[in-house]
Amino acid sequence: MDAQILLERLIAEHKPGFALQREFQTSAEIYQLDLERIWRRGWLFAGHTCQVKQPGDYFVLDIADDSLVVIRGDDDRIHALHNTCRHRGMRVCQAEAGHVGRIVCPYHQWSYARSGELVACGGMDKDGDLDPTRFGLHCAHVREVAGLIFVCLAVDPPPFDEAERALAPRLRPQGFERAKVAAVRNYEVRANWKLVWENNRECWHCHANHPQYVQANWDAAPIDDARLRQEIEAHARAISARLEAHGLAIDYAEAGMVRFPSPDCWWSINRTPLVPGWVTESMDGRPVAPIMGDYPTRDVGTLRVRTMPNFWNHSSSDHSVSTRLVPAGPQRTLAQVQWLVHADAVEGKDYELDTLLPFWGLTSEQDWDLCARNQAGVNSPAFTPGPYSTRREYNVIRYTEWYLHEVART
Amino acid sequence: MDAQILLERLIAEHKPGFALQREFQTSAEIYQLDLERIWRRGWLFAGHTCQVKQPGDYFVLDIADDSLVVIRGDDDRIHALHNTCRHRGMRVCQAEAGHVGRIVCPYHQWSYARSGELVACGGMDKDGDLDPTRFGLHCAHVREVAGLIFVCLAVDPPPFDEAERALAPRLRPQGFERAKVAAVRNYEVRANWKLVWENNRECWHCHANHPQYVQANWDAAPIDDARLRQEIEAHARAISARLEAHGLAIDYAEAGMVRFPSPDCWWSINRTPLVPGWVTESMDGRPVAPIMGDYPTRDVGTLRVRTMPNFWNHSSSDHSVSTRLVPAGPQRTLAQVQWLVHADAVEGKDYELDTLLPFWGLTSEQDWDLCARNQAGVNSPAFTPGPYSTRREYNVIRYTEWYLHEVART
Amino acid sequence: MDAQILLERLIAEHKPGFALQREFQTSAEIYQLDLERIWRRGWLFAGHTCQVKQPGDYFVLDIADDSLVVIRGDDDRIHALHNTCRHRGMRVCQAEAGHVGRIVCPYHQWSYARSGELVACGGMDKDGDLDPTRFGLHCAHVREVAGLIFVCLAVDPPPFDEAERALAPRLRPQGFERAKVAAVRNYEVRANWKLVWENNRECWHCHANHPQYVQANWDAAPIDDARLRQEIEAHARAISARLEAHGLAIDYAEAGMVRFPSPDCWWSINRTPLVPGWVTESMDGRPVAPIMGDYPTRDVGTLRVRTMPNFWNHSSSDHSVSTRLVPAGPQRTLAQVQWLVHADAVEGKDYELDTLLPFWGLTSEQDWDLCARNQAGVNSPAFTPGPYSTRREYNVIRYTEWYLHEVART
Repeated sequence: MDAQILLERLIAEHKPGFALQREFQTSAEIYQLDLERIWRRGWLFAGHTCQVKQPGDYFVLDIADDSLVVIRGDDDRIHALHNTCRHRGMRVCQAEAGHVGRIVCPYHQWSYARSGELVACGGMDKDGDLDPTRFGLHCAHVREVAGLIFVCLAVDPPPFDEAERALAPRLRPQGFERAKVAAVRNYEVRANWKLVWENNRECWHCHANHPQYVQANWDAAPIDDARLRQEIEAHARAISARLEAHGLAIDYAEAGMVRFPSPDCWWSINRTPLVPGWVTESMDGRPVAPIMGDYPTRDVGTLRVRTMPNFWNHSSSDHSVSTRLVPAGPQRTLAQVQWLVHADAVEGKDYELDTLLPFWGLTSEQDWDLCARNQAGVNSPAFTPGPYSTRREYNVIRYTEWYLHEVART
Repeated sequence: MDAQILLERLIAEHKPGFALQREFQTSAEIYQLDLERIWRRGWLFAGHTCQVKQPGDYFVLDIADDSLVVIRGDDDRIHALHNTCRHRGMRVCQAEAGHVGRIVCPYHQWSYARSGELVACGGMDKDGDLDPTRFGLHCAHVREVAGLIFVCLAVDPPPFDEAERALAPRLRPQGFERAKVAAVRNYEVRANWKLVWENNRECWHCHANHPQYVQANWDAAPIDDARLRQEIEAHARAISARLEAHGLAIDYAEAGMVRFPSPDCWWSINRTPLVPGWVTESMDGRPVAPIMGDYPTRDVGTLRVRTMPNFWNHSSSDHSVSTRLVPAGPQRTLAQVQWLVHADAVEGKDYELDTLLPFWGLTSEQDWDLCARNQAGVNSPAFTPGPYSTRREYNVIRYTEWYLHEVART
Repeated sequence: MDAQILLERLIAEHKPGFALQREFQTSAEIYQLDLERIWRRGWLFAGHTCQVKQPGDYFVLDIADDSLVVIRGDDDRIHALHNTCRHRGMRVCQAEAGHVGRIVCPYHQWSYARSGELVACGGMDKDGDLDPTRFGLHCAHVREVAGLIFVCLAVDPPPFDEAERALAPRLRPQGFERAKVAAVRNYEVRANWKLVWENNRECWHCHANHPQYVQANWDAAPIDDARLRQEIEAHARAISARLEAHGLAIDYAEAGMVRFPSPDCWWSINRTPLVPGWVTESMDGRPVAPIMGDYPTRDVGTLRVRTMPNFWNHSSSDHSVSTRLVPAGPQRTLAQVQWLVHADAVEGKDYELDTLLPFWGLTSEQDWDLCARNQAGVNSPAFTPGPYSTRREYNVIRYTEWYLHEVART
């Protein structure tokens, strides 16, 4: 079936406040529209500037069939170069990450500067009409904000400045630029990328599925318990008071999670209190690494960032955890989770992976498993989308609205 | 190509008495029509009532993308519930089989009674318009007959009563309701489900491929050997005479196999003599378990049942073997073989898997291998359907007619 | 999209002298056209006559979904029989190679003579209208030339005589008919078959990727180095002078590789000098087996043959290496490499696999790896076909022209 006709029918039949229909999570045609209209149009989180500290440092980011080399150039800026030689299309970078002087294609040694310009193609016709300035590696757009790298595959990227203004001052105290990646875990989630977001956008499932997460966080607190709400707010105010001199604040506003996303806002950042007794998102709430960034004290709650369509991060005073999604098929999503600590922290001395990783490692794996079982159930021809709870799943409703708005843009 | 146009062309070009054309066994479009018009329309064998003895006992049956929870309710009846939560589509039952008080979705704890009614969905809006009676698990139709469970995915199932009247009295002596499953083997057959049936519907291939099966059975006896035919008939009459007082009879009518199926009959049952010296379908013909059901003697021949499109069973006096098919792609079929014995029989004392399983285990595996090689050959663009033998493959001809009749029904 | 419309658009948009567009290497529709118009139309290398020395010797050649039994008949000629029973389509030969008296289908024992005629089908209706002469195994065309076997799946094969006239006299001294296969290696190349040919049709990539190959061969010699060219030509003339009496000649004409293919010529053969010090394509240039065929001396350079779309061979005086391709999907090609030596040579005494295999084993595996990475890069939506070097990639340009000419023929 023609993808656009299918999409229009599905949108017309979608019932607001209800789950997306089966085809959104199964159809190859819808998946292609998702790639074209969302993944190849918006800003995607790529990684951290600390992964490419020196000119020539690079890492590779694959987004479905696209492959980008995210590299620091001699101009000290970060470039995103398409990983396909301008000669015959060989992947120019094979490793997941590394360091290069020039990018030399292994096939016929076409050589590119670190910012993508073609600088040598020895065997080509000397009197030919090959104009090297026309054969640099294709580029994607890149923006940095306080140590986070975003890329955009579109010719004309959506505006970034407003996001940067909102994110930069709140990200800065975390010290991403003076951090290092302590561990990386790559996961294959057997679910459509949208089911991963639906899982992420509510914590109603947390009590039954994330025993360690709910010890540290209030996300799953009963929304209608007025006394608990007052307790949380009082706790948030107390921490904020202590942090005031440092320009930090807990901006806790309501039980559950901050309202996000919406069709006109693809980013969000806020700071939330941890449960008393927890100073970091670790298995027992005790520190797992030296303090990062500019924090004056360990008890700063958790900084949380999300950007559509592929990023969320939870940062404690001593470590930060970034989750990056890329789609890999109608029922397959690749998730990369990275744990960051202060650049000077030494493994085995200042931190141990055994205590750093489990909190978000377990939480992530629990979610991937839920998503896979959700996909299996949605695959049933008998599946009929059910109603979302406006109290518990307001963000899933928002997410669904955001998605339908984005995918409908031709 | 449009599936219906393809089907009509294939049907128009099919030569009666000849094999089905290649596309019937390879095309994704025809496979979808098979699912819609046969698998989601007719009665499918699901399992045995003894698998769900107590209220809350269940097993899961996956049929392509559909997944059913076959469960005994508090009303002591068996229900077939679609395994997809009415909230967001999570698979509600993850295990292959088990026992539950309520069916609680692991995602957000929507809870369903054993017969599918929504009984709790705690986090939903209290003043909302969620009417629990509208959000029970979707149901499929269920019928039981003498210990066998059949389900139907269609809104309006085809009639079942006539099948029940025919099957029940002949099934009853086997004692399926007082049986237990002694062993299960799950197989992936690398062939279209129709090639599995074409294999099943003749025993011409038996002499060369099933050395143990042909020792016990006369299915592959030469059809034109009048003396052998008389010998078989005399043997059948002699056994019948001994069984008469118990209302049992060998209804052997002709060499080869009972004629089945036809467009107006999707079930069949009959009792056949075993070769003298064999009292059960075991490797040496000797008993492998205590007598089942109401049999007065071990020497009762073999009870044989088949129902289109997914079931056959051979039952001896001491054990019973059920084979259940489900399609899993144009060139992939899942086959489950179950061995049943008397519920009171104790493994290691009354029976051993080493003697119980090989007869049908080997026969099944030999057939799956033939089917896979048949599929590989049919995949060839050079394949041209050949003629069936009217003496040896009359049931494959009938099967082909049944199939073309069913798949043509829009 | 309709395959023909897609093809016409791609051909119209293709820029001569530039790489093929992405869809040629990724689209399932184009792949089907490739099968129909090239693989099921032209002459394909199947194997060597020495693989089927005696009547009844056979090997199986799978070409996408087609499967051929290449067998020597009682008439001593080689036949190519479709490996699908004329009854119900079972694969009649299961093994990769073997020896049979008759070809007996394992399913119902339809039996075929070694040249394909149906000679028995016991269970069929005796008074029926089954005319055995109409039910022999379907045949493909076969031609032999000096020990090489070619097959054609088309009803009307393209002419072969001219190719035979050109190839036979030059192949004969190699003694393929008195050879034996010493080793076989089967590879799965994760690339479209056309990328494998693009890799094969230039040696610009050799210096950086084939360290052992370039020690023995001048393929990658700089084209514009007049002194080197004179040196090679002088060396070629010197060897030729020594061989003259035996009717052998080095027909070296220019640095780089002989010009091939073209739309009107699908075969090519020539003899090239090896670098001084090398008398065979081995790791150190020293002999690895007894002299083959009619060679008067070891120093005969290398005989090279290629036929479109699936064969190339490099033969030294002591061994010969054949590479056969078959397509197995838009991004998957199966490559079989065979090493031949004199039929009387004894492994462990006259030759060792340790010295015979590495030269072409390593070179092949290096190429398969390049092809896979080329495919990965071409898969990128950002890939834009680049210009070929007319000095270094003239044969890739020719190959592209040949391909576009062939695939356009309706």
